[in-house]
Formats: sequence, C-alpha cells, structure tokens
Amino acid sequence: MIIVGGTATNGIDENIAKAIQLKLVKVEHRVFPDGESYIRVPEFIYDKDVLIIQSLYPPQNKHLVELELLLDTLVELGIQNITAVIPYLAYSRQNKRFREGEAISIKTVLKLMYALGAKSIVVVEPHSYDEMTFFGGTVKIIDPFPYLAEQLSLNDPLVVAPDRGAKSRALRFASKIGAEVIEVQKERDRVTGEVKITNIPQFDFKEREVIIVDDIISTGTTIANVAKNMMGAKKVIAVAVHSLLNEVNYNKLLQSGISEVIVTNTIPTVYGKVIDISPLIVQQL
Amino acid sequence: MIIVGGTATNGIDENIAKAIQLKLVKVEHRVFPDGESYIRVPEFIYDKDVLIIQSLYPPQNKHLVELELLLDTLVELGIQNITAVIPYLAYSRQNKRFREGEAISIKTVLKLMYALGAKSIVVVEPHSYDEMTFFGGTVKIIDPFPYLAEQLSLNDPLVVAPDRGAKSRALRFASKIGAEVIEVQKERDRVTGEVKITNIPQFDFKEREVIIVDDIISTGTTIANVAKNMMGAKKVIAVAVHSLLNEVNYNKLLQSGISEVIVTNTIPTVYGKVIDISPLIVQQL
Repeated sequence: MIIVGGTATNGIDENIAKAIQLKLVKVEHRVFPDGESYIRVPEFIYDKDVLIIQSLYPPQNKHLVELELLLDTLVELGIQNITAVIPYLAYSRQNKRFREGEAISIKTVLKLMYALGAKSIVVVEPHSYDEMTFFGGTVKIIDPFPYLAEQLSLNDPLVVAPDRGAKSRALRFASKIGAEVIEVQKERDRVTGEVKITNIPQFDFKEREVIIVDDIISTGTTIANVAKNMMGAKKVIAVAVHSLLNEVNYNKLLQSGISEVIVTNTIPTVYGKVIDISPLIVQQL
Repeated sequence: MIIVGGTATNGIDENIAKAIQLKLVKVEHRVFPDGESYIRVPEFIYDKDVLIIQSLYPPQNKHLVELELLLDTLVELGIQNITAVIPYLAYSRQNKRFREGEAISIKTVLKLMYALGAKSIVVVEPHSYDEMTFFGGTVKIIDPFPYLAEQLSLNDPLVVAPDRGAKSRALRFASKIGAEVIEVQKERDRVTGEVKITNIPQFDFKEREVIIVDDIISTGTTIANVAKNMMGAKKVIAVAVHSLLNEVNYNKLLQSGISEVIVTNTIPTVYGKVIDISPLIVQQL
C-alpha cells in the first residue's frame, strides 16, 4: 500500500505515512492564473492499493474538485483499490432536504467519490452517521470522542451536549471517563438560520468542570449560547472535532465564558488547543 | 420544457427563456459562512424536460460543484431529460496528459456531469472538439465564429490564427465573410508555461484590417505577442469567444497594438466589446 497525499492534508498524510512506515507520494498541484486547479501524480505507482489523504476544509469546493480529479487520475493510472481518508467531510451538514427542492449536498458528494472509483472511505466524525450510507462502497467512521476524552486531564467533569444532535457525541466522550451528561434543547429556524435555546436542564454547575462537546464549531453561536448559561462553573471547556472558527468567532467564544477551546487538526486552525488526529486514524485503519 | 437558471448564467438564462418563451425557474443559491454552497430548486417542476443553463466561469470550482448539486437534485426530483447548456466549459484546456501522471481534468468534469444525470450537453466552442467525446451522452457544440464574423463590419480583413489550435477557428470565421487566413506558429513549454512564436508567415499587413481569432483570451500573452508583429496594419482586432481578461492583461493587449477586443458573454467581463451569445444558442438548440 502507498499513501497519496492530496492537496489538503494539514500534515496528516505525513504523520500517517511516518507512523505506519509506508511510502508517501505527494500530489503535485497548483492553480492556474484563471483559477482552475491542476493536479499531477508525480511518480509511477506500482502498488495497486492506495490510501488517499484529502481533507475537505475551506475552500471546500476547490478541495472537492481536486479530490475528484485525483480519484479519476489514479483509476486511469491503474490503481485498483482506492481508500479515501477524509478527515473533514465538507457538506456533511446538508444531509436532508430540510426544505422542498433543496440539494442533499452530502449525497451528491459521496455519490461522486464512489462514481470516480473510491472503493472505501474513512471519515472522522461526520455530522450524521446515517448519511454515510449514501456512499456505495465500504465506510469506516472514526469516532474521536473517547480519544479526545483520554487526551484531557479532567476532574469529575460534567459533559454537556449543546443540542440533541450532540447527545451521542457527549455520551461517547463521557463514557470513556465515567462522567455525567446533560443535554440542552435548541431549535434552528431553517429559513433564517437563527438558533434558540428552548430548555436547559436545572443543574448545579457551581464549581464543576463543564465540557461542552460537539462535532463542529463554525460560527460558535451554539456553544457560546450554551456557555452563557453555565455561570458559576469552575471552568467551561469547548471540545469539537472540526473547527472552522475565525478570530471574531473564537473571541466570541472566549467572551461567552469558555476558558479553553480544544479541537483537532482535521481542519487547519490557529485558535485553541489542537490535538493531532493522525494517531487515531492510524490505530483504526 | 422548462429552463432552469443555475448559479452562474450571466443573464443568458433570461435571454434564452425570453427568446423561446419558456418558463424560467431560477435556482435559489447562497454560500454559508464557512464557504459551502447551498442550492435549492424553489418550485415544483412538472415538466420532465429541463434545460439547465450554467456557465463554468470563475470561480470555476464553485460553479462546477453547484452544477453537480443541481444535476443530482433535479434527477432526484424526477426530471428525466436534462440538457445542460454550458456556455463556458471550464477545464477545457486540460484535455490531454501533457505530462505523465497529470489529471485529464475535462474528462473528469464531463464524466461527472453524465454520471449525475445530464443526458445531453450544449457547449459554446470548447478548446478541442475531440475532448467532448469524454461525455457519455449527446453533445451539441455551438460554433460561434460565423455568427461573430457576421456581427462585425469588416472591410477586406486578413484573419490571423495566433497558433495551430486556432487555425480551424480562423477558417470558420473567415469563410463566412470570404477572407484570407494566415497561421502563426508558436510553442508552449509545458513545464514553465512560456510561449514562443517560432514562425510568422511573410505577409504585407500594411493598411489591412487584421483580425486575430481565438477561442479564449486569458492572460492575453499569445494574442499580444502576435499583435506586436503586425505593425503597419490599419487596425488589429482581437476576437475571442471566452474572455478571462483582467484589467492588467486587457491593457497589455491594448499596448501591444490591438485597437479593439471583441468577446462574448459566456463569461462576465467589462473589457472590450461584448456580443451576446444567447441568440445563437437559441437558434441552434
């Protein structure tokens, strides 16, 4: 087996290749002056089994098209078994027709990868595990929460799911360290995108270490709104797998009472503490 | 039949719908804060035949992914016959493996459209007509050169093909108006991208109207280099179907001796005279 490092890896390709001592071929890539992407596999690949590493972080459409080009090229070059390791799967949140006539974007994305020859895919914590059935081949989902729970030194923490979708994540995190879990209820208006907290369980947060757990932090609004309701806690930590935070939203989190943001490197980020996900991927391959 | 206006049409969808008096459904679209595209077909489409208009001008990857989402959504909504009208086909110039291991990007693009349910496509002047065989369905190529020749008032012009690839274009332009054609020979270094003129036919340009014809102007380097060798001409006009010119490159063209740049609206542009391609598309549908 050979590792092919795509155009968006954030170093995970190198970490994996080093850990399992496999040859790494880095894809040559550039952007033409007009904006078209160019990719090239710079050496002949004798092995018929290839592990592509390509994360779909922003600019998502560029990295997605480059993955499409790469898959098609490897198939044409005679590679028979392609596994695409996608640490961050873009479009994962558009997994239903929330309104009539909407694209189920993740379905299209997964359909395309399969059509282009990916036999199997490995994804770190997609937004919904169900949506992965849109992929026609073999799927491996990497659950990062027990791993993340292990990496942190927590003292009798209270784990908070900021909404219903995060409940299973909070449970997976908490069960590893035997912690309690509570769930916040919220509602999102599908047209305006506005989020409202509808219920927070009565609970004594005083002097507790509160850990808010989610799959992704994007604007940070969900987590900030929850954090504001946890006054009196010893500290409030936000743990997420994928971080799309910018400076404004990161500061918003800190101002909401979050003392620390902990994320992984599935998406490049300079905000918060970043835990390398590569060892977990290696362990589960 | 119904026209579906995509996310990148430059008004061509409206022009076509108006000219053939068909209902136009404009796709609802926006970009989420993190950069993912959202598309939605905002009304139920009863007709089973749909003409999508989507040009693949910059940002090409965004418009390509949005076309992929749109095709997949229309198929899921029960549309049986989808024709994609693509005035400007991105990635058209990467149509061969010029170097080992390169992506044949246009092959991937055309393969994807077919896989997602486009039964036929209509393209205005792709970079090579041969490459269109990569599409599995019906292909209609619109030759814009006779139409462009008709739109201009030329007086005994000399038509120049700036390289070998442009020869057939120059001939199609010239034959409509009974003009002479000459061909410039150039070479492009595939690694550095540098272009060198290797031969210009001996010819008396003095007091002639010279028309340099090409499919696409991007940096304008090819045409500017040719124009510099046409000193003494009454005027030198550049005619291209697709224009990716920016201000710097447009000025470079004017400084090279070009007196007028004539292009079409397959790509939005503010540089040069823009001829609407919609009537020709309507005529050939």
